[in-house]
Amino acid sequence: MASSLGPYIYCTSVGHRVHFASLSSRPTTAATTAAPRSLATKTRVAIVAAAHRLRLPPPKVMEVEPSLAPSAEPAVAAAFDFKGYMLEKAVAVNSALDAAVPLAHPKRIHEAMRYSLLAGGKRVRPVLCLAACDVAGGRESQAMPAAVAVEMIHTMSLIHDDLPCMDDDDLRRGRPSCHRAFDEATAVLAGDALLALAFGHLSDLTCYPADGSVSPDQIVRAVGELARCVGAEGLVAGQVADLEATGLGTPVNQEQLEFIHLHKTAVLLEASVVIGAIVGGASDDQIERLRKYARCIGLLFQVVDDILDVTKSSEELGKTAGKDLASDKTTYPKLLGLEKSREFAEELLKESRSQLSGFDAIKIAPLVHLADYIAYRQK
Amino acid sequence: MASSLGPYIYCTSVGHRVHFASLSSRPTTAATTAAPRSLATKTRVAIVAAAHRLRLPPPKVMEVEPSLAPSAEPAVAAAFDFKGYMLEKAVAVNSALDAAVPLAHPKRIHEAMRYSLLAGGKRVRPVLCLAACDVAGGRESQAMPAAVAVEMIHTMSLIHDDLPCMDDDDLRRGRPSCHRAFDEATAVLAGDALLALAFGHLSDLTCYPADGSVSPDQIVRAVGELARCVGAEGLVAGQVADLEATGLGTPVNQEQLEFIHLHKTAVLLEASVVIGAIVGGASDDQIERLRKYARCIGLLFQVVDDILDVTKSSEELGKTAGKDLASDKTTYPKLLGLEKSREFAEELLKESRSQLSGFDAIKIAPLVHLADYIAYRQK
Repeated sequence: MASSLGPYIYCTSVGHRVHFASLSSRPTTAATTAAPRSLATKTRVAIVAAAHRLRLPPPKVMEVEPSLAPSAEPAVAAAFDFKGYMLEKAVAVNSALDAAVPLAHPKRIHEAMRYSLLAGGKRVRPVLCLAACDVAGGRESQAMPAAVAVEMIHTMSLIHDDLPCMDDDDLRRGRPSCHRAFDEATAVLAGDALLALAFGHLSDLTCYPADGSVSPDQIVRAVGELARCVGAEGLVAGQVADLEATGLGTPVNQEQLEFIHLHKTAVLLEASVVIGAIVGGASDDQIERLRKYARCIGLLFQVVDDILDVTKSSEELGKTAGKDLASDKTTYPKLLGLEKSREFAEELLKESRSQLSGFDAIKIAPLVHLADYIAYRQK
Repeated sequence: MASSLGPYIYCTSVGHRVHFASLSSRPTTAATTAAPRSLATKTRVAIVAAAHRLRLPPPKVMEVEPSLAPSAEPAVAAAFDFKGYMLEKAVAVNSALDAAVPLAHPKRIHEAMRYSLLAGGKRVRPVLCLAACDVAGGRESQAMPAAVAVEMIHTMSLIHDDLPCMDDDDLRRGRPSCHRAFDEATAVLAGDALLALAFGHLSDLTCYPADGSVSPDQIVRAVGELARCVGAEGLVAGQVADLEATGLGTPVNQEQLEFIHLHKTAVLLEASVVIGAIVGGASDDQIERLRKYARCIGLLFQVVDDILDVTKSSEELGKTAGKDLASDKTTYPKLLGLEKSREFAEELLKESRSQLSGFDAIKIAPLVHLADYIAYRQK
């Protein structure tokens, strides 16, 4: 399993701002000579993630002076119609999802899969996938099988996370959750089937353009990336850590919270972007920059989710609100306070943008606006 | 999704003997001129499976005269040390499984995955995979990632099937089932993680020989085959149909029972053999013959399982015995009686052998003996 992060990672931080500065397998001179004492707050996001990926004990945090220069924000055409773009892509994705799960025999399981998969939602992950493919120079048709696959994975994780033995949630996307609308057994199996179907769809050569613009090598790489993001190094790790933390009865610290969120949320956004980039023909360097962009917006997504949970109603969210507050679950607002959480979100947003510098300014517009959307969404 | 069976399938039957005779997309003259009226019993296994695969309504069963000639039984060296072969392969598979799931963080989920995955078992599926690769002319190292993957899928299906909301089984492989040894949430997640890891392992190029003897094309095809066998066309379809049938309170007919078994059991044996053949470099024709062999032994496996459930004790089986009898679950012994069930098993065994004729007589020894083992096992 390749990792983008080496065992030595230098991060600079202002408040909770993350700078993925120098990622190498050995300390660099610049980094080791830096004096970190003046830094008040440290962010261990990248370090913890890297250590986990490499199955190493948490490495020592080595810091360098923070960059005082404002992060390079790419010039994006202000005229970009983000709403129209999202709508257009969501329609295309919904159509592909609908076609990918026809109402076959046995009917009940296909109904359950379709119930959860076609329940709406903003299709953030598939759109990220399509947008990353575009940034890499690929066409939409190259990334659509992957876009469908990541949404299937997202849906299956929601179905299983909502189960009574897990988060026990009755409401999802404004409707009864899958095990409420059907039954527990069907929900478990619908999740399993969607998980398998995601890989089936991603590896189905008939779903790709006939011109061979996506090679079997790229598909194999995409399958590996998707598998890693679901398993015990990804979504499952996040859910396990979350359940363990909830059961502890004591608040977790920021490092543990970041582990949960990086795995429970960020990995799938990361996989969506990276797989889109792979099938779009991105270079390794481009893939790694897009991976870091995605990791930032992944963490951002969860920080914002935590904020919304305490600031919005169930009706506004379309799911049970205030649940984190009622439970003993640690969230960013509980850990940092609401204001600091918002600052952290802002810093992550800026960092995500800086990773996009160097790409085509026009083509990155959807990714820039998607990050903004994740940051400023109201549900 | 490619299917080995066209919409027109001609089967001949004597008693419950299945003959996969002519598999084509159009009726052949020989078939359409045949007079089926003299046949007392019909077997719809292939027809139902094909219709389901192609998402068609059940096709008309068109029959041809039964073959009166005995099936060609390949000459197998009587000296073949099957016990030694199984032991040697199981040791290699166990070692690969152990290495594939190291005890990483978060510990509990990896413990649960290892608990179920390394609980012993006969490793029939991985051995089938390795043996099919050998028959196709490949080396063991080419098939080991696939062998590991199919055992992961098998284990995940057992973990989820044992859940309280499914078959609610406390005992598995002679030990508490996963949700009993750990908890329900961990069992759901361990299953999910193993499912994802199976695809991760199968698509991990570093797991294959460095000489490129397994190409990305072969891996993509293998991933597709594995995905199909798990999802709503495979294991999940079988489990759903099984749960529905159990809930009916009325016995299902033989057609429904065959649907359940072909999907709940046969598909994974089929995938094991087919994927082994793919990575071993088999031709399409060879793959399809091995697929039919596997489908026969898959159904055989379940018929024998049903027989063992009523003839053996829990201690002898290492799992709860007599469960099918106590429940309203339809089984072959209930449907056909014990004697007819045994005859059916015998016919399936013979048919499986006939599919192996034409392959290297020495190399098929493990597959011939594996079929015998499945037929004559005592637990």
